[in-house]
Amino acid sequence: MPPPELLRAMFRAAVDAAAPGLCVPPNLPPPPRGRTIVVGAGKAAAAMAQAVEAHWPEGRKLSGLVVTRYHHGVGPLARIEVVEAGHPVPDSAGREAAARMLDMVRGLGADDLVLCLISGGASSLLGLPADGIDLADKQAVNRALLHSGAAIGEMNAVRKHLSAIKGGRLAQAAAPAEIVTLLISDVPGDDPSVIGSGPTVPDRSTLADARAVLRRYGIEAPESVQARLLDARAETPKPGDAAFARARTVMLATPQDSLEAAASVARAAGVAPVILGNAIEGEAAEVARVMAAIARQCAAHAQPAGAPCVLISGGETTVTVRGRGRGGRNAEFLLALAVALDAHPGIHAIACDTDGIDGTEDNAGALLGPDSLARAALLGVVARDRLADNDGYGFFATLGDLVTTGPTLTNVNDFRAILITK
Amino acid sequence: MPPPELLRAMFRAAVDAAAPGLCVPPNLPPPPRGRTIVVGAGKAAAAMAQAVEAHWPEGRKLSGLVVTRYHHGVGPLARIEVVEAGHPVPDSAGREAAARMLDMVRGLGADDLVLCLISGGASSLLGLPADGIDLADKQAVNRALLHSGAAIGEMNAVRKHLSAIKGGRLAQAAAPAEIVTLLISDVPGDDPSVIGSGPTVPDRSTLADARAVLRRYGIEAPESVQARLLDARAETPKPGDAAFARARTVMLATPQDSLEAAASVARAAGVAPVILGNAIEGEAAEVARVMAAIARQCAAHAQPAGAPCVLISGGETTVTVRGRGRGGRNAEFLLALAVALDAHPGIHAIACDTDGIDGTEDNAGALLGPDSLARAALLGVVARDRLADNDGYGFFATLGDLVTTGPTLTNVNDFRAILITK
Repeated sequence: MPPPELLRAMFRAAVDAAAPGLCVPPNLPPPPRGRTIVVGAGKAAAAMAQAVEAHWPEGRKLSGLVVTRYHHGVGPLARIEVVEAGHPVPDSAGREAAARMLDMVRGLGADDLVLCLISGGASSLLGLPADGIDLADKQAVNRALLHSGAAIGEMNAVRKHLSAIKGGRLAQAAAPAEIVTLLISDVPGDDPSVIGSGPTVPDRSTLADARAVLRRYGIEAPESVQARLLDARAETPKPGDAAFARARTVMLATPQDSLEAAASVARAAGVAPVILGNAIEGEAAEVARVMAAIARQCAAHAQPAGAPCVLISGGETTVTVRGRGRGGRNAEFLLALAVALDAHPGIHAIACDTDGIDGTEDNAGALLGPDSLARAALLGVVARDRLADNDGYGFFATLGDLVTTGPTLTNVNDFRAILITK
Repeated sequence: MPPPELLRAMFRAAVDAAAPGLCVPPNLPPPPRGRTIVVGAGKAAAAMAQAVEAHWPEGRKLSGLVVTRYHHGVGPLARIEVVEAGHPVPDSAGREAAARMLDMVRGLGADDLVLCLISGGASSLLGLPADGIDLADKQAVNRALLHSGAAIGEMNAVRKHLSAIKGGRLAQAAAPAEIVTLLISDVPGDDPSVIGSGPTVPDRSTLADARAVLRRYGIEAPESVQARLLDARAETPKPGDAAFARARTVMLATPQDSLEAAASVARAAGVAPVILGNAIEGEAAEVARVMAAIARQCAAHAQPAGAPCVLISGGETTVTVRGRGRGGRNAEFLLALAVALDAHPGIHAIACDTDGIDGTEDNAGALLGPDSLARAALLGVVARDRLADNDGYGFFATLGDLVTTGPTLTNVNDFRAILITK
């Protein structure tokens, strides 16, 4: 198979491994005696709801509401309402949907089932402040946290204690109904309490933890926030809480599953897959430099594997924007890889977001070949200059090497593969 | 073997593989009929000269001059003069030594041998402008190049054409004598024309290349420089030039050799070595984040290898200094690794410069264990804060976990190993 085709096939396999239409049906619980209420949020929420509806036994009661990102809807569906809302910046559509979900699951009985569909993006889509907290106050704390240097776990300890639905609150509202949460993970470690901030999952963080985070980073919280964090009734439900007596989680798809699926495609093509990590983070251009050095080591010394082999990784890189170009983190990674590999013969690569949208553009990512730099130069485009301008999109668009899928309606984070053919 | 001991033993093996006392003697050429003149430069120059002197057959004529970095001398030697000079900022001691070396090899006959000893740092230590070029002019161009964003190969094309000794000029001066160059590599790819800017090696770059670099980066060169780059007599000798008819290079030690030596130590201890790259470059803290993610993948998924295994890499990282702490790039790498691994159980690491000096401090590097963060916290030291202050040295000094060897009198770049025990 030509290298670009193999790399595209690997990416497709990675996305398919997390496709709701394929991973939801075999994991559906049996219908309950009573009603089934579907709730959920995330980039995959609509597609997951569609899969539920399509495979739910005929004649069994099913209704509900899920919220997904704008342009990530499907349908309309017959029995589950799909709402679109703001992501990554929350908006009122998400707030209203969260409030309605809580209303829907309140007052259910022990014979009823809540089917909760959670995927990447759920946290932003389910932004509903706890009683007594003003939306502006919650947003102010969130902004301060984002600028504080606090770790993600520290931020979530605060957020969960200021939310009406996260950190197990949705499960509290739904008890005594049975609660089955189907999850598609986009976070390192695949912890259900982290994905979408775990609306149906026990929260191990405490009010004291949340207060300590604000103290540690010198964040002056508004009065309503301070009061809540001192109110023992605001404590989130912990492991062992009655709210979770009939709750369970099912992990449908993870970044690792998708890397393994891509690895299988490579193996079938006679190419040795080397999975380096499912949660590689860091500045995209710097990650690219490291990956380029490992690829060169494969070509020169058959370490960690000899050609033909492919270095596979997942996780989410970041871009510190210094230029004025266009492009998401995958285009930036790939352009930096191009510069670092400097037209090394026999090395091809792909980098795409499995959600189908690399940042704010319309492409999922792009493809790189050993001739990319030379073809660009013929068009008067200098890779190094484009990288300095953060214009990965522009670079690969000029070459006609963007990978465009549209929203895939799932998300297991980024997918990168570097193929060493000789 | 306890993890810290194994990691120290691996580092020792990496250094020993490049030790002049061990790698020079078996590679000495037979003495010529006539005289043997030893010249050379680099961090290992004095130790290499010492090894030559100790193993040169008695009664055969031997004299010469090598230049090394301050505090990297040995001796005094009986027959070869050792001069110490400025590095990385060149000084007059290096200039004078370079001029004397050229004088020494001029007028030799076909029965004579020039033994040239080149190792990392030679380029700075042999800074001698070509005739007609003012030192200040050469320095001005060099500064402009360093700030231009030009690649190292581009900078060297200019430098070689402005030097009296680099880019094959030393070989030109020494012909028709036999020329044997013994090399210890500290550069990616181990190209003899790059190590110390190849004083005895053909230069593939041209005057036109040098002019194009200045044009490409908009560098306004002083008149003396412009004139030289237009003077055909200033062209460096190319492959096939008579100057190299009796010249050959012998690679004594490379970063890869040292990584392989460390890998053997691991293998003998029952730990699977995974060499990721001998030339990994990038911002130290970012390289650490990638390495941490790969180490976690080993622990969680036995990919690219299962525990017990050790991830080995070489190359030279960089540090963009933002804080006011102390520490070289290896301490910075290791501290960032500590933060990224977040006390992951069972993971230990070492990062050291094989030359024995990590940046400007007195240590070669440091050791990290799963308990490092906790021990630091007990002493009131927060890893994340120390990293923000670029204080890797301070962090590991507080813990008593610095690795101190003194100058090793060789240099095959950085050595990093991350041991996953479970």
